[in-house]
Amino acid sequence: MALLDSIEDFEHRDWDTDPDGQVRMAVVGLGNYGRNVSVPAIEAGDYCTFTVGVSGTPETRRAVADEYDVRTVDYEAYTEGAATDAYDAVYVATPNRLHLPHVEAAASHGKAVVCEKPLEVTVDRARRLVEACEAAGVTLMTAYRMQTDPVVRRLREAVGAGELGTVTRAFGDFSYDVLGGSRGPDQWRLDSRLAGGGALMDVGVYPLNTTRYLLDAEPVAVQGETRQSGPVDEVDEHVDFSVRFPGAVGNFAATLTGRSKASLALDGTAGTVRLCEAFQPRRERTLVVETDAGRAVFEDVGRDETREEFDYFAHCLLTGQQPEPDGRDGLADVETMMAVYEADRAGERVSLRP
Amino acid sequence: MALLDSIEDFEHRDWDTDPDGQVRMAVVGLGNYGRNVSVPAIEAGDYCTFTVGVSGTPETRRAVADEYDVRTVDYEAYTEGAATDAYDAVYVATPNRLHLPHVEAAASHGKAVVCEKPLEVTVDRARRLVEACEAAGVTLMTAYRMQTDPVVRRLREAVGAGELGTVTRAFGDFSYDVLGGSRGPDQWRLDSRLAGGGALMDVGVYPLNTTRYLLDAEPVAVQGETRQSGPVDEVDEHVDFSVRFPGAVGNFAATLTGRSKASLALDGTAGTVRLCEAFQPRRERTLVVETDAGRAVFEDVGRDETREEFDYFAHCLLTGQQPEPDGRDGLADVETMMAVYEADRAGERVSLRP
Repeated sequence: MALLDSIEDFEHRDWDTDPDGQVRMAVVGLGNYGRNVSVPAIEAGDYCTFTVGVSGTPETRRAVADEYDVRTVDYEAYTEGAATDAYDAVYVATPNRLHLPHVEAAASHGKAVVCEKPLEVTVDRARRLVEACEAAGVTLMTAYRMQTDPVVRRLREAVGAGELGTVTRAFGDFSYDVLGGSRGPDQWRLDSRLAGGGALMDVGVYPLNTTRYLLDAEPVAVQGETRQSGPVDEVDEHVDFSVRFPGAVGNFAATLTGRSKASLALDGTAGTVRLCEAFQPRRERTLVVETDAGRAVFEDVGRDETREEFDYFAHCLLTGQQPEPDGRDGLADVETMMAVYEADRAGERVSLRP
Repeated sequence: MALLDSIEDFEHRDWDTDPDGQVRMAVVGLGNYGRNVSVPAIEAGDYCTFTVGVSGTPETRRAVADEYDVRTVDYEAYTEGAATDAYDAVYVATPNRLHLPHVEAAASHGKAVVCEKPLEVTVDRARRLVEACEAAGVTLMTAYRMQTDPVVRRLREAVGAGELGTVTRAFGDFSYDVLGGSRGPDQWRLDSRLAGGGALMDVGVYPLNTTRYLLDAEPVAVQGETRQSGPVDEVDEHVDFSVRFPGAVGNFAATLTGRSKASLALDGTAGTVRLCEAFQPRRERTLVVETDAGRAVFEDVGRDETREEFDYFAHCLLTGQQPEPDGRDGLADVETMMAVYEADRAGERVSLRP
């Protein structure tokens, strides 16, 4: 039983061909996530390096320029093409509704793009974003870091090889306390216009996309329900949604308040897997596998999947390959999430591919 | 933090006042569950004893009479009042659609009843069952064994005391392989007329009822979806359903095929709990508690909750108390489950208490 024996593979980069070169990255949006999670991951990468920072805040530009010895520009200069000689590709980590103009700018400069999830706040805007890159002939990757985590990649191989039999059900949840720590209520994630949605768009997309990736299957119908119980009022604080795939159902939950928590589980006719601490960045994950061959618990598996994400993206550019989580992958999730909101409003099951 | 410290309490019978006496039990229905799970639990009880067996199969009557030195009768004799001098109360473990006549017979003999879940196959029949006992003035308990498991009782106390903060979400699943082992396809659980439903009625009722019990709350709306992927064709092989409570949502899944699996989890604003191997009879359970005070894993907690169930029922009779999982409790779940089937058929959210 390969999955039970594969603990050493949970560090393996199956895509790495050890190419020469490095991709110089501009980071567009230096908020908490971009600056404190993504920039260090890019800097730690084998195939990418941080060379240009884009921020609207003068103090941030100064601080980042000092800390990393990089050029920094504001959004207007970035859009107009400043510093394009200093970067090869763009990472967009601005609020969701700004992805479209910031990706369009990159495409107009002929730069490859890795864009944060969700791609945009409506299906139409997400489609325009994808088409802008296609028209310009630039590579677009949606920043689905879980798809580059070796644990998730091994799970996908195991599912594809039938090690769990037929997978009939997925469970996933992700709770992120958007107001925790020093984070106050004045942030774009709680602004319905900028974020486009709340728990579903920000964290619910993780179990949704990861399940699509693991099952290699597309949703055919959704049901769902959003609600608010506390301090979040403009966007969905909680979402519970059910996604029907051919032959399987995914039951997903996400929330923007409460204790940090994430898990992903698959039930198959011949085995089950459960990944604990599944979606938080830089967290030690635990994988529990149960099959007819036995039970195994793997602690502290995987690698820093944010570093993996940027190295994978840069590796694709260096080797002329198309990233697997491409723009169409990101667009499919926006379509599904909008259907969940529609199902919630209508109180009805909504079909996706009639 | 009481819940983190309460491992010793996971064996405690909070209801036990050590009364004198024993309740003599007639077991109506000696199929696999009744004969191999419930009869040994009754025999092991402090406050109950097995004195009369009811079966339609002559070989079963002979074998049970020999093994336990009890009187055995067939259904016709039971209904007509045979051996009523030899038992004080009746445990009904026949197929779901036979619960009504078998409980009506007990009520007509003036005997207290503990009736298996689900109470009956329709809301109307379940209500008639409850009303038959109320009219006869006999005690009726629905056989929700989880409500007598000390672990579940401690969890309920912890939730009630606010140890998890506000509980905003429950997760529960139960997979029981109805065709596993020597069990063939010729069984009443797969007969839609006798069973009234499949995965939802047989195993989905566990996470539903246990969550109602833990939250002390009633459903206000449901969504759900049933499906069949394999050998089960007359009833729902799989069900995924979502139950809206005031302030919380329960996401539940149940299946009649695949690997045995059960869990129940609660997310609260101040803590989470997860009970593994939650619903299988006589299984060692693991409880994981995470609160602001820390994390604890309790292995092999609880008692044989089937024995607890019958001792609790008998204790109620000996002390003149009303069992908490009464007929109305069982009726509420039938109402909710029928709403889930309606939601599945209609593809719509169905409200329960308009």
